[in-house]
Amino acid sequence: MTSDDTIGGLGEFRLIRSLVDLFPQGEHVLVGPGDDAALLRVKQGHVVVSTDLVVEGRHFRRDWAEAADVGHRAAAQNLSDINAMGGRAHSLTVGLAAPADLPAAWALDFARGFAEECSLVGASVVGGDLTRANELVIAVTVLGACAQAPVLRSGASPGEVLALKGRQGWAAGGLAVLGRGFRSPRALVEAYRRPQPPYDAGAHAARAGATAMIDVSDGLLADAAHVAEASGVLLDVRTDAFSVPEPLQAVGAALNADPIALILAGGDDHALLATFPADAVPAAWDVVGEVREVPEGGEPTVLVDGAPWESETGWTHF
Amino acid sequence: MTSDDTIGGLGEFRLIRSLVDLFPQGEHVLVGPGDDAALLRVKQGHVVVSTDLVVEGRHFRRDWAEAADVGHRAAAQNLSDINAMGGRAHSLTVGLAAPADLPAAWALDFARGFAEECSLVGASVVGGDLTRANELVIAVTVLGACAQAPVLRSGASPGEVLALKGRQGWAAGGLAVLGRGFRSPRALVEAYRRPQPPYDAGAHAARAGATAMIDVSDGLLADAAHVAEASGVLLDVRTDAFSVPEPLQAVGAALNADPIALILAGGDDHALLATFPADAVPAAWDVVGEVREVPEGGEPTVLVDGAPWESETGWTHF
Repeated sequence: MTSDDTIGGLGEFRLIRSLVDLFPQGEHVLVGPGDDAALLRVKQGHVVVSTDLVVEGRHFRRDWAEAADVGHRAAAQNLSDINAMGGRAHSLTVGLAAPADLPAAWALDFARGFAEECSLVGASVVGGDLTRANELVIAVTVLGACAQAPVLRSGASPGEVLALKGRQGWAAGGLAVLGRGFRSPRALVEAYRRPQPPYDAGAHAARAGATAMIDVSDGLLADAAHVAEASGVLLDVRTDAFSVPEPLQAVGAALNADPIALILAGGDDHALLATFPADAVPAAWDVVGEVREVPEGGEPTVLVDGAPWESETGWTHF
Repeated sequence: MTSDDTIGGLGEFRLIRSLVDLFPQGEHVLVGPGDDAALLRVKQGHVVVSTDLVVEGRHFRRDWAEAADVGHRAAAQNLSDINAMGGRAHSLTVGLAAPADLPAAWALDFARGFAEECSLVGASVVGGDLTRANELVIAVTVLGACAQAPVLRSGASPGEVLALKGRQGWAAGGLAVLGRGFRSPRALVEAYRRPQPPYDAGAHAARAGATAMIDVSDGLLADAAHVAEASGVLLDVRTDAFSVPEPLQAVGAALNADPIALILAGGDDHALLATFPADAVPAAWDVVGEVREVPEGGEPTVLVDGAPWESETGWTHF
């Protein structure tokens, strides 16, 4: 293979062979890539499964992130869904629909980044598909398991507190500066390119007694709204609970924007948001609000400092 | 919702709610669509998993198949991958990347067809993703289980026979006539739009002693080549073993083509191709060839009537 090779020129089967070599198989993988299906040993009596699509121009731009970054991000957002159940991912499949003129090196670097992110939790890429399309679309499915009962979105009760674990607003800050043609603050751009989900925190929160949990992919308020709705509660987020880290202050000043909006409405960091009984919040989590009853005649919703939030709440896919 | 609604106009969350209503959940589904991940009970100690991408313009055309047909086909090709392991699918995820102007009715009809095909084997759609894209791309992942050891591609041995179960060449015949602007023979067009994989035959073959198995998705010779390579054997297909059904004779005459080429090179019917000890072939299967040793200095390959097949062998994705 040369640096000029495209995936169309290289051909499906040669490229697949090269890709498969990049994916080490865990010992739970009895049959890995290359047959009609992979075969996985499952000891726990259950599987948690989630799937996500990543579309060029919508979820990433090749001029804003290296192929390896796109691989890291695509894996991270899926691994994070298992984290948000209080589980740990063990296996993933990845489908790549791509134009024939995509450089083969891009696909291989993407796969390297993807595999590297998966290795952070010990998960294996056990299968995939590769096909031609006009647009670059990445489809990931992740399988995992929970060591205890999974934490759903629906378990929050009035009187509990809302807590956050992980960076929040950083990726949105990075995206904001990239969108304006800047490449700094570097820490935010890097956070956008390679989110750092708190992979150990989900299972830890579940053991500590989290009653509801979600990962913040669309935006803190948008994802909190999913918890509010599923649990039939009102969530009240306190803005004074967030410390605004220096790079977010810098980007707020540069863009003449309130950095708290990045924290409340920004997605893509894959922090965890969970509810706990007030005395059960793990030390490493920040309490950022409380769970209240929905007032008579009201709807489950999210308030900010006791009032509706009037700005944008998050990312809508259509 | 009205017939004029597009998925962009309707919005992601409203459409997802309507879609989820179309997917009944089996009793193994402890948590279905709507949380960060689905939770499935797995009794067998293992999972088989496979994934496929389906791209508009490449794998289907909206003017050649109704939305429900596309749903049937997308599900069938994935369910068939589990069938080819000798297993049965229990759960699927489906991702839909679609232009905002896609009629919501198309997405719902697609989902109805998809769910209907899944119901043939008792499988549930447990999760999904919906996002905007310029092009319609469908990403399916299927999970299943085997009641016995899975049948891989790698188990064929010299002295065994090659056998086929299911229609072969029908879908390719349908595609050939559609490509020339015709709509008949109706049986072939229908076979292309809604393949009928022999869903009970995979597990049955495994119990009967199949040594290697694959589903014919890319073409009989192309998929046989995967078995030959994985098993390190030579497969010799006998053309006189195939009876050419009337609609394939008709399309051959109309297009001035040898219908045996449709049988040998056509894909998309999702018939099963397997190797067995000669005395173990189930009654409903047709013996279509034999497994031989690779001659000294030779490579694993597929012959037709003892000689290399010079025409097209199947579908190449790039």
